[in-house]
Amino acid sequence: MKTGQIHVSTENIFPIIKKFLYSDHEIFLRELVSNAVDASQKLKVLASTGEYKGELGELKVEVLLDKEAKTLTIRDNGIGMTAEEIDKYINQIAFSGAEEFVKQYEGKEGAESIIGHFGLGFYSAFMVAEKVQIRTLSRHEGAQAVQWESNGSPEFTLTEIEKDTRGTDIVLFINEESAEFLEKSRIQGILDKYCKFLPIPVFFGTKVEYIDSPEGEKDEDGKVKRVSVDVPNQVNNPKPAWTIAPVDLKDEDYTAFYRELYPMSFEDPLFHIHLNVDYPFNLTGILYFPKIKENVEVQRNKINLYSNQVFITDSVAEIVPEFLTLLHGVIDSPDIPLNVSRSYLQSDGNVKKISAHITKKVADKLAEMFKKDRADFEAKWDDLKIFVEYGMLSDDKFAEKAKTFALIKNTDGKYYTIEELEEQIAPLQTNKDGKVVVLYTHSLEEHFSFVKQAKDRGYQVAVIDGPLASHWISKMEQTVENLSFARVDADTLDHLIQKEGELPSKLTEEQQSELKPLFESAVDNQKFKVEFKSMSESDAPIIVTQPEFIRRMMEQQKYGGGGFFGAFPETYNLVVNANHQKVEALLKMSDDSEKSTKVKQLTDLALLAQGMLKGEELNKFIERSISFV
Amino acid sequence: MKTGQIHVSTENIFPIIKKFLYSDHEIFLRELVSNAVDASQKLKVLASTGEYKGELGELKVEVLLDKEAKTLTIRDNGIGMTAEEIDKYINQIAFSGAEEFVKQYEGKEGAESIIGHFGLGFYSAFMVAEKVQIRTLSRHEGAQAVQWESNGSPEFTLTEIEKDTRGTDIVLFINEESAEFLEKSRIQGILDKYCKFLPIPVFFGTKVEYIDSPEGEKDEDGKVKRVSVDVPNQVNNPKPAWTIAPVDLKDEDYTAFYRELYPMSFEDPLFHIHLNVDYPFNLTGILYFPKIKENVEVQRNKINLYSNQVFITDSVAEIVPEFLTLLHGVIDSPDIPLNVSRSYLQSDGNVKKISAHITKKVADKLAEMFKKDRADFEAKWDDLKIFVEYGMLSDDKFAEKAKTFALIKNTDGKYYTIEELEEQIAPLQTNKDGKVVVLYTHSLEEHFSFVKQAKDRGYQVAVIDGPLASHWISKMEQTVENLSFARVDADTLDHLIQKEGELPSKLTEEQQSELKPLFESAVDNQKFKVEFKSMSESDAPIIVTQPEFIRRMMEQQKYGGGGFFGAFPETYNLVVNANHQKVEALLKMSDDSEKSTKVKQLTDLALLAQGMLKGEELNKFIERSISFV
Repeated sequence: MKTGQIHVSTENIFPIIKKFLYSDHEIFLRELVSNAVDASQKLKVLASTGEYKGELGELKVEVLLDKEAKTLTIRDNGIGMTAEEIDKYINQIAFSGAEEFVKQYEGKEGAESIIGHFGLGFYSAFMVAEKVQIRTLSRHEGAQAVQWESNGSPEFTLTEIEKDTRGTDIVLFINEESAEFLEKSRIQGILDKYCKFLPIPVFFGTKVEYIDSPEGEKDEDGKVKRVSVDVPNQVNNPKPAWTIAPVDLKDEDYTAFYRELYPMSFEDPLFHIHLNVDYPFNLTGILYFPKIKENVEVQRNKINLYSNQVFITDSVAEIVPEFLTLLHGVIDSPDIPLNVSRSYLQSDGNVKKISAHITKKVADKLAEMFKKDRADFEAKWDDLKIFVEYGMLSDDKFAEKAKTFALIKNTDGKYYTIEELEEQIAPLQTNKDGKVVVLYTHSLEEHFSFVKQAKDRGYQVAVIDGPLASHWISKMEQTVENLSFARVDADTLDHLIQKEGELPSKLTEEQQSELKPLFESAVDNQKFKVEFKSMSESDAPIIVTQPEFIRRMMEQQKYGGGGFFGAFPETYNLVVNANHQKVEALLKMSDDSEKSTKVKQLTDLALLAQGMLKGEELNKFIERSISFV
Repeated sequence: MKTGQIHVSTENIFPIIKKFLYSDHEIFLRELVSNAVDASQKLKVLASTGEYKGELGELKVEVLLDKEAKTLTIRDNGIGMTAEEIDKYINQIAFSGAEEFVKQYEGKEGAESIIGHFGLGFYSAFMVAEKVQIRTLSRHEGAQAVQWESNGSPEFTLTEIEKDTRGTDIVLFINEESAEFLEKSRIQGILDKYCKFLPIPVFFGTKVEYIDSPEGEKDEDGKVKRVSVDVPNQVNNPKPAWTIAPVDLKDEDYTAFYRELYPMSFEDPLFHIHLNVDYPFNLTGILYFPKIKENVEVQRNKINLYSNQVFITDSVAEIVPEFLTLLHGVIDSPDIPLNVSRSYLQSDGNVKKISAHITKKVADKLAEMFKKDRADFEAKWDDLKIFVEYGMLSDDKFAEKAKTFALIKNTDGKYYTIEELEEQIAPLQTNKDGKVVVLYTHSLEEHFSFVKQAKDRGYQVAVIDGPLASHWISKMEQTVENLSFARVDADTLDHLIQKEGELPSKLTEEQQSELKPLFESAVDNQKFKVEFKSMSESDAPIIVTQPEFIRRMMEQQKYGGGGFFGAFPETYNLVVNANHQKVEALLKMSDDSEKSTKVKQLTDLALLAQGMLKGEELNKFIERSISFV
């Protein structure tokens, strides 16, 4: 037996690090600016422990673009490095300086906010640069400034240089394929994306700009050049709202921060939730409830995930429960594992806890809002409804809490909790089996005549709409005892809320049998079942109903995806009012053609009330009706 | 100045390779099975060049799961390795054996189909295993079998062992956190995903299974154990359709392959396109046109990307033009860069060429189908329409080709190319400015009366529907000279296709002024503009029209996202037919209440014809009409 060491040769691994470490090349700038911020944070820590006794000065990071020289420089005035430190932290790949530093200063202020994790970040520079220089002067008194340079071969040179300001310049000589990173707008875009809330001021400036002007010195390409050494502009807000204690923030501050996050948004959010957890995981953030627009998909996945104020991703699908992915805002947590797969995230314990915590916080906030100012809560309800319903359907714990504040609106625009509504309608709307029946419609406009009939009897009609309606109703029936739901057009009112005793029918069974074929010949028999029912004289002569169960199943299928119910044929009942005078009158008519015209007209009007008279049939009805005018 | 070498120490880089090389842990199995397939392919090449003179035997790969021993073994009977080869290919990380091998045997059969690219694949085993053994016997006559073993420390041991079959066993001792990879269903799932079409037969078997049975030997947990050494089942089809020449395949073979790809699919595809490119990039594949279902999003992104028969991803958004992401099927290309970012892919020259090539192939296939069997093409058109329209809108080259086969259906179900339709309608539907006007509807059902009026005049009405309709129409107007489109309800027919001369009006201007306030009081003046027009006596007494331009802009906004037109108020014209007898009759009426009831009824009927009479107004109309019966 022989033992040995697996060997990684730098020549072999280096190309892989350069090419495949990050799938997105633009990440190099995030890494280098983060390193520069780290260098500043470290100096602060050293100053706070007394180890660094010099002036801190105004700590800042500068990103300087020189298109002419084809360089991009990342400059900080942080701790700097000696030749020895370069050897330790740069020449030994994957020797994570940050990790060692954090260990050493654990518990001391600022130490946790150090970003670099693997010590590989610096090497991402070679993804875009053909040559990289590090020009650095250490914080140590009397230190010798040095310049490290490499073309990624992986050979390097180290030279003593003149540099009289503390800190480090990373100079990238951008390679040909990466020319995009010499564009001002591209760099500005990357900084806006990743560095907008870094904790140390970050400035961006360009040395040379090409401008559209007929005057001025022209370069070889005939473009007009302006050498300007711009005053660099600050690109970040080092103290974003989520890092500030909630007691120190007013509502306006939250709204202002929302606008900072989403400059393109026209509307203010409905309200916010400030998250702040220390244990068992670290999490801060602010979530906003937006007004839901018609095009829901555009609003999804607007939550930005940060790790110590460095932007990581706007894909938080695994961290935030699905019913809250319509929320906007920021989550910052160093405890969410980065660079790992979605399936891994889903099974990660911390991530699960974070998701559960966010759900709980949202439920608590809603309960508090409901309790504090009901009128305001009701005003917001139409916008909140979809969150709450979706949450109740997908999370039982949330559903339990939400029962106390979930509202149902009736057709008069009044809002009730489920308990209140039940209490309100119980006297009139309890059926003979003791069940309280909630009548509802998905659209007052489409069910106007049905709603009117119900209200004429003193019944309340709830408006329950949206894609989740059927699922939500079924869930309520399962969890609230003795409550059932029926859409106003599911049957005649007498059958929707069955009481003891039945109305007598004016038409005898024989008379009904005589008239039935007339109605059957007026409609498609595959689709409609004709039946006579004892209804009130003031009810419509005919109504078209659609049984609750099948309709609800079909709706659930439609919005739940897949399945076989969707293929069921739609079936309806054509219910003839056996007590209506216009129906009775048909018996006395002798002219068959007149009789069938009247039956057709009455049937068409019933179909019209259900929005079911269309196309050629509607056209015939209109032409017939014009002739009646 | 001092020079030196950047150094990567194995201890430092190894944890990163293990943890972060692949974001998805399950990839280890793809890598190890691919390596085993490589080992078999290499042996074939050596045999074909005469360098290997032994029996090839039946080359195969076996994946063997032993839950009890907590091991997963990947076994091949390929080239095997000597101790020296292990030292070269395993102990030196990132020394890509495959690359060297391909160089050496370039041009020889099979050499290109070698999968491994970076030589790092093997190490992904340590993502899931606490210990890994390589047990291998080289192809060389009289070779000594060896066992390499490492716990990833990165120390290894190398021992001589007894092994009398050629090839390599990779034995993974699965670590605790990765217990999922000891589940039969999990492994089966991974093999189905990545290895379904590998070019060498792959078998999967389990040694121990726990079964639900009251009898048999029980283990410590009280579960019944069955030691079975299953006969491994083959999991792959080594010769999938796309690797076979099109001449050797029948239509049934393509359909059968579709079912192999999508076992859950109920419907056969409409047709397929077999891709086969050698230059300037390598690409094979089969694309299927599916029947588009209601829920389009579910059907998107079903194209699987392979690299030499190894599944890579089903996310091909950058490789396939967006309008074709609804296609199904397989693309196999070793020339598509893997493991790189989307933004990088988008700018990659090969990828752009591939995308353009696929677009061209699709256009050619459609043109060929149209030419070959027009009746069949027409039968498929309703399903093809959305692809073609989207393609025409997003790709000008495709649009140019598609003009010859894009069809427009009329309300009688006849199909015309744009040129044919223009020719057909020119005699009757050319207006006084020489423009040929295509009348269209999005729905025969909703526009029945409008369509009927148009057809009564001998006009043709096209059915142009779907979310892209407005955009597509505008595009046609821009690219086809002298062609314009107008929806049937955009104006009166006389104004939609204006001819020289105008119909005389029966009503004088004074009479019109007398009647106008009656109509204005019947409708909402914010929404409707009342105007009298000379129409045919047989036209409707009133029609409601919506001007083409604004409606089209609003539709384009709705489906194009964003913008300000959506916020415009909807406005309509209430056009009163100055030649209709029912309108004229109003002048002679003296009873004001009767007159306004008749105006209301006529107006309601016009709204009804446009599907605009709803809610309370519809209910009133119905009650009024019942009383008329």
